[in-house]
Amino acid sequence: MQRILNNPDNITDEMLEGFMRVHADIVEPTDNPRAIRAKTSTKGRVGVVTGGGSGHKPAFIGFCGEGMCDAVAVGEICSSPTAKAFLDAFTAADGGKGVACLYGNYSGDNMNVKMAVKMAKKMGLTVKTVCCNDDVASAPLAEREKRRGIAGEIIMYKCGGAMASTGADLDEVIRVAQKAVDHSRSAGVGLTPCTLPAVGHPNFEIKEGTMEVGVGPHGEPGMEVCKLESAAGIAKRLTDIILPDYPFEEGDEVSVLINGMGATPLNEQYVLYNEVAKILDAKKIHIYKSYVGNYLTSMDMMGASLTITKLDDELKKMLDMPAYTMGFHER
Amino acid sequence: MQRILNNPDNITDEMLEGFMRVHADIVEPTDNPRAIRAKTSTKGRVGVVTGGGSGHKPAFIGFCGEGMCDAVAVGEICSSPTAKAFLDAFTAADGGKGVACLYGNYSGDNMNVKMAVKMAKKMGLTVKTVCCNDDVASAPLAEREKRRGIAGEIIMYKCGGAMASTGADLDEVIRVAQKAVDHSRSAGVGLTPCTLPAVGHPNFEIKEGTMEVGVGPHGEPGMEVCKLESAAGIAKRLTDIILPDYPFEEGDEVSVLINGMGATPLNEQYVLYNEVAKILDAKKIHIYKSYVGNYLTSMDMMGASLTITKLDDELKKMLDMPAYTMGFHER
Repeated sequence: MQRILNNPDNITDEMLEGFMRVHADIVEPTDNPRAIRAKTSTKGRVGVVTGGGSGHKPAFIGFCGEGMCDAVAVGEICSSPTAKAFLDAFTAADGGKGVACLYGNYSGDNMNVKMAVKMAKKMGLTVKTVCCNDDVASAPLAEREKRRGIAGEIIMYKCGGAMASTGADLDEVIRVAQKAVDHSRSAGVGLTPCTLPAVGHPNFEIKEGTMEVGVGPHGEPGMEVCKLESAAGIAKRLTDIILPDYPFEEGDEVSVLINGMGATPLNEQYVLYNEVAKILDAKKIHIYKSYVGNYLTSMDMMGASLTITKLDDELKKMLDMPAYTMGFHER
Repeated sequence: MQRILNNPDNITDEMLEGFMRVHADIVEPTDNPRAIRAKTSTKGRVGVVTGGGSGHKPAFIGFCGEGMCDAVAVGEICSSPTAKAFLDAFTAADGGKGVACLYGNYSGDNMNVKMAVKMAKKMGLTVKTVCCNDDVASAPLAEREKRRGIAGEIIMYKCGGAMASTGADLDEVIRVAQKAVDHSRSAGVGLTPCTLPAVGHPNFEIKEGTMEVGVGPHGEPGMEVCKLESAAGIAKRLTDIILPDYPFEEGDEVSVLINGMGATPLNEQYVLYNEVAKILDAKKIHIYKSYVGNYLTSMDMMGASLTITKLDDELKKMLDMPAYTMGFHER
């Protein structure tokens, strides 16, 4: 395993120590070392919280900051934050108008968020949730509630965070974050597996010359393993999965997000974007806004996912509002 | 080769097509498809230009935009831009007060920049240059002019671009960019080789369990191949190379930049940063500003480099000024 590590069991602590120092202009610690908060005040407005495991950087602490998340609960590598970490993130984000917890659909996160919401309620703090389930490849439409959250989460944070920053009430923040999820569809391909530092070897396999369509960020099985295709072939495959699911149609305005899974060079992410854009152009689906980069990664995994979000005037306004975090900027 | 590509010979064209569309708020094309320009006007001030091969994203087009570079010449993967591309970048950046060309010390870039400067002179356009040579591991101090430019280039662009945006004259922009270089020292370790898409297999080797100290961004040989060390060991090794070379001493104020080489997870870059910070703390060298991330990569190479820059009030002011590019933000 060719990685830059000390004791792999300490990676989350050591990473956080570095992260908090580098980004001291944006984030600050709380009393719980597994919950961090943005320096932006939430006084008199809704606080936005997320959380998740630590192997997906910039997700999730990289989206803590102005215009996105006000506090983030931090889990170990590929492991949900504890209920206590979520609870402490809720109290850190509480500005007196309630908290919106926007998170991804994974069993551990679901369980811990639910426990934390109950604990918060006992303390008199209202927390409402949106659970992102944008990964079309992870379950059929009829079972949408089973789908994983992947890079559509970034769109959810951006829209929810923007609405919170307008001073809107909790129900409005929840409504727009849920709308961002409902209007988003994603799918990805994995080209190589990833290696958890504490394990030292890949915990699943993707054979040279093949790719796994719909692989999850922790190596969860996808829809199928097939021959590695060209960028054009991958773009066609992903849009064939995504577009009919919503459906996206001629005349729609959308955002397009290409998310690198960690080790796929940026050049190739732009090449993939370009192929997706050609397909959408041909279908007269208008791209209003585009994002390309590593947003929700799986350490050293190669591959990329595509997220398409149908935009209305409200979502466009939310995406256009400023944000300043380690992993996402909009001015 | 597990990569997202069409015909590898077209990757630069296709990447650029995607890049220009995604970042149409920041950059625009010129008449030369291998020169792009920032949307920011250079009218009445110095224009800042850089350029380089296309396998190092965000470098170099990712630093085109407000507060950094006004135009960028684009080469193929691991290949210098042509003299014509540099020349066209110069004319694109020309706002009537001359052009500062800030680039890295590679033979192809040196040759093409020199030719382009001559061609510009014939056209009546004054271009002055700074050649970044921050990589301590690539030649001894006595032969500093032979050293490669690596991630210290980002500090050079930031300081030169900031000075240009103040309206300072060409000599001032060149002076501060040269100062940024002269005050910067870098060194890196490579943990895996990279694979050029058109080649299909790594063009050099780094054996499992070893690392190459001082490997260049195109696989240029480093100082030595040794056993893969812990993050703490790598931090000690890199600071042992860098600190005596300037030298950096107790009481100095510095910026620290950890640059991921492409496939090294961000978690590990923050762990490495943390170890560097501990060493500087112990030496009472004060970290004024820190950067961690993928700035100047080698596609799918694993590894990281460290750049330390000694700061005075002027350089601090330059680093603190705003920038808005694909690959670097400061507000």
